[in-house]
Amino acid sequence: MKLDILNKIDSPRDLKKLNKSELYELAGELREVIINKVSHTGGHFGPNLGMIEATIALHYVFNSPVDKIVYDVSHQSYPHKILTGRKHGFIDPKQYNSITGYTSQLESEHDFFRVGHTSTSISLACGLAKARDIKGSKENIIAVIGDGSLSGGEAFEGLNNASASGNNFIVLVNDNEMSIAENYGGLYQNLAKLRETEGKSEDNFFKSFGFEYHYIKDGHDLDSLIDVFTKVKDTDKPVVIHMHTIKGRGYEDAEVNKEAFHWIMPFDLETKEPLFSYEGEDYTQITDDFLCEKASKDNRIVGITAGTPVPVGFKNFRNKFKNQFMDVGIAEEHAIALASGIASQGGKPVASFFSSFIQRTYDQLSQDLAINNNSALILVHGNGISGGDITHLGIFDIPLIANIPNIVYLAPTNKEEYIAMMDWGLEQNQHPVVVRVPSNEVTSTGENVEADFSDLNKYKKVSKGSEVAIIGLGAFFQLGEKVQAKLKEELNIDATLINPIFITGIDEDMLNELVGNHRIVITLEDGLLDGGFGEKISRFYSDKNMIVLNYGATKEFTDKIDINELYKRYHLREDLIVDDIKNMLK
Amino acid sequence: MKLDILNKIDSPRDLKKLNKSELYELAGELREVIINKVSHTGGHFGPNLGMIEATIALHYVFNSPVDKIVYDVSHQSYPHKILTGRKHGFIDPKQYNSITGYTSQLESEHDFFRVGHTSTSISLACGLAKARDIKGSKENIIAVIGDGSLSGGEAFEGLNNASASGNNFIVLVNDNEMSIAENYGGLYQNLAKLRETEGKSEDNFFKSFGFEYHYIKDGHDLDSLIDVFTKVKDTDKPVVIHMHTIKGRGYEDAEVNKEAFHWIMPFDLETKEPLFSYEGEDYTQITDDFLCEKASKDNRIVGITAGTPVPVGFKNFRNKFKNQFMDVGIAEEHAIALASGIASQGGKPVASFFSSFIQRTYDQLSQDLAINNNSALILVHGNGISGGDITHLGIFDIPLIANIPNIVYLAPTNKEEYIAMMDWGLEQNQHPVVVRVPSNEVTSTGENVEADFSDLNKYKKVSKGSEVAIIGLGAFFQLGEKVQAKLKEELNIDATLINPIFITGIDEDMLNELVGNHRIVITLEDGLLDGGFGEKISRFYSDKNMIVLNYGATKEFTDKIDINELYKRYHLREDLIVDDIKNMLK
Repeated sequence: MKLDILNKIDSPRDLKKLNKSELYELAGELREVIINKVSHTGGHFGPNLGMIEATIALHYVFNSPVDKIVYDVSHQSYPHKILTGRKHGFIDPKQYNSITGYTSQLESEHDFFRVGHTSTSISLACGLAKARDIKGSKENIIAVIGDGSLSGGEAFEGLNNASASGNNFIVLVNDNEMSIAENYGGLYQNLAKLRETEGKSEDNFFKSFGFEYHYIKDGHDLDSLIDVFTKVKDTDKPVVIHMHTIKGRGYEDAEVNKEAFHWIMPFDLETKEPLFSYEGEDYTQITDDFLCEKASKDNRIVGITAGTPVPVGFKNFRNKFKNQFMDVGIAEEHAIALASGIASQGGKPVASFFSSFIQRTYDQLSQDLAINNNSALILVHGNGISGGDITHLGIFDIPLIANIPNIVYLAPTNKEEYIAMMDWGLEQNQHPVVVRVPSNEVTSTGENVEADFSDLNKYKKVSKGSEVAIIGLGAFFQLGEKVQAKLKEELNIDATLINPIFITGIDEDMLNELVGNHRIVITLEDGLLDGGFGEKISRFYSDKNMIVLNYGATKEFTDKIDINELYKRYHLREDLIVDDIKNMLK
Repeated sequence: MKLDILNKIDSPRDLKKLNKSELYELAGELREVIINKVSHTGGHFGPNLGMIEATIALHYVFNSPVDKIVYDVSHQSYPHKILTGRKHGFIDPKQYNSITGYTSQLESEHDFFRVGHTSTSISLACGLAKARDIKGSKENIIAVIGDGSLSGGEAFEGLNNASASGNNFIVLVNDNEMSIAENYGGLYQNLAKLRETEGKSEDNFFKSFGFEYHYIKDGHDLDSLIDVFTKVKDTDKPVVIHMHTIKGRGYEDAEVNKEAFHWIMPFDLETKEPLFSYEGEDYTQITDDFLCEKASKDNRIVGITAGTPVPVGFKNFRNKFKNQFMDVGIAEEHAIALASGIASQGGKPVASFFSSFIQRTYDQLSQDLAINNNSALILVHGNGISGGDITHLGIFDIPLIANIPNIVYLAPTNKEEYIAMMDWGLEQNQHPVVVRVPSNEVTSTGENVEADFSDLNKYKKVSKGSEVAIIGLGAFFQLGEKVQAKLKEELNIDATLINPIFITGIDEDMLNELVGNHRIVITLEDGLLDGGFGEKISRFYSDKNMIVLNYGATKEFTDKIDINELYKRYHLREDLIVDDIKNMLK
């Protein structure tokens, strides 16, 4: 790559010295760097290509970090990172891992928050604005939002408050016509009208809040960007700049297939083939296949996603059953209440989420769904201990969901159980049912599993032994099998192995039976120990003669730590667990 | 009371037979009934007086329960209840307790959800609409919202989706110019403009979503109400009816002092004096006094409330420190992100909530606050086991908050500790600090407590004994003292008594010390056992030789069950606990 301009840029200060034509050259270089880097490492592709010119213009006009820019979701902050002293992480393959995919105040004084969930930038920036006003200083506060994030409740709450704050506050709306999937909702129809009329349409959503409003027709035209940013700089009012951009701008495939190129796996730039491929079955596909089959026979099934249809199991479903499919956009709270409402009238909603994003819905799960005890089915994908980003961990859903009364939270250990649980969740009308989609490779037993889990909290004793009992929850059942084998091999112990099936309750009979001929019960869960499943087992045995060892994640935020390192740290390996058992048996 | 008309009304069917002048008479009778009943029992006063005419008109025009009306918060549903077969609960003092203060499908086929939190009606009604569309039936779906609820994120998410649903959907916005306190935000300025222009102002918030829009100038004028409702009945579009009402209508004091009369304690209708009065100190006042004192010396202190300033400790603060006070309206998610942003720049935010409403903010506590580890102070009022409504229980905040990494959740046991904890929370800059305001009567020791809790998870051993150790968390520390006394009295045991101070961690040294000369550890917490504090103690001892007994609430939704009944059910009495200990020591 020839990076004549970028080589000269170590901070936004250097950028301000460039002339217009150099700025355009810089945009080209940034584009090349991002396309090349993300093709090697995977990451957010379309969102960053769409923000290149706007980021250059922001740093050209404003004075970061005195002026403060907050990026919503922050998955569009790669250009910002490259321009604020972190270009090595995008240019030098050896340093690709040195820079995270999101903003981080640990990396740079130009970042103010670690952000990975949507719809938060305006509210967070309101905090920066209030802190400024208390101090009596005068810097610009800029919240960048878009890419579907506007539909999340927190963004609306932020707009409502920011618009009434009566002082400098700049919202840059990056309108790329997309959420992760397509946008949905009346608000986006308003944005479309504003685009058609170049900002002149009546009943302007942003003006309705009282914002001063500016429209930028081409968010890739540096001249218009710089012009408008200069105009609003140092304003004493809340202002919205509505900028139209093209997601994936400058990479044809990404411009055409915006959803697929939102986030990509590594691929070969020449052949466009993925660098890694996975041929086996996966639980996403199993979800989709099962729901399509069910829906083909029952028009009461309604699939619900909050902006991420493909990875939560609706890839085919959404096209085959248009009338039975609802993408509510990034609006998880609405999705749960909607599902509760449908179920209350005999419909069969199945709402499917990532573990990290269902965190948005605690109150809706509790109030809108569980108190009303409506029989919606909820699927939790992307859960479990992982090497993921700090903002996207999947270890908190058990403490979150399993301690809400009335909800039945199920943990399948294989394909057949998973399908049976979804089936039961849809057919029964007694409880809200949540299923924790296993995060490990698909195990298929070929056994027929009856779709009936109405006998709540009845665990399944898979093999009966003595001395040690292993309770392997969901995706960690297979780890339980390994522990069992190793105990036999090393200590000649025939351990009891239990598949608890239910996360939300205790099988008192079975646990009581273990007392007497077992000395140790171990629990294995693919999630946080605090407030989780194992602690309930510990509490049950706390007045009985039984040693309990709980295995799972420690209460900590981890950030891109290799999963094997975490498994070692938490003793989530059969050798380490058997060592622990040996120590207890001494 | 002379209830000539009401005596004839057992269901909405009877209402439809009345002529206009009888409808007006009915409104007067409803008003008299509600004023009389609520003055005796306490309850939501202003919201119900404001909804009388609209409710009559709804039932006159629409065909409930085929047409489905969903009330937001449902604290304005008394007129609806009286008109749908439940008047006995409002007229007959002996039956006052037979009817709850919120809608409930267990009470009537005219209710569809149990609701007590705000901003949910539109999303829930979207579910009813989707279920209708699947079935191919044609009823009207009506979501009633207002009284400040529009500012909550879930309401916005609902509006965004309802507006694009392309079928019959009626939103009745009850604009009484109020939240619980005064409205705040750009949206409410838009409503004000619409009121001034009788719905004709440009940049109409509701039209910006694409709703058909109708304005009703006088929401107490039955003719206009019936006229507009009749016009929109059986529409095939999403419609908003924006109706201006007067909160507290028909009771002068309530019209004048809208906030104080939102929810009232029982009072004497003649003298207007409260029937019960509480003269002692309370933690709300202590909060206010302390924060006022702090703020008078430090302009970085910023008080934040989400629509309920008075009961969370800002009664005087909000008037004395206008520049340091932010009522964000009903927008809890925004409040947490805002606090995080202020803290990130060295401000000292203190955001104060009810336990039940902080449930809205799990994701913001985790992502916006805890991951960023900003040192905001959060206060949790109204927590603990209570005889309250199912929708307003305060037992879930420990599982919700205490299992989030980085957060320090503190449980004061008396006034001096509470003040010291608030003080430390504001002065330190290392952690997000949450304080669980004790729910019991104020205990004051007069002792000086140092405002330093930086040595995390160091419990306080209040008295050293043997055999039994009692860990009494927060408001249940005093119960721990009673258990200690009774153990001495009945078993001559000198029990160890521990004030753990920290909800979020374990004092391993102190707990290890107990092993050997203690056989039983009991934990006492004023909240849910599942996912709570005691389970962490059980887990700690699960591989050690110690009996642990955890006391707290069972995982269940309770609804207006007498607190003494609950204490008995959960063995939260010193006599019952000592009996349990006797059984274990046998």
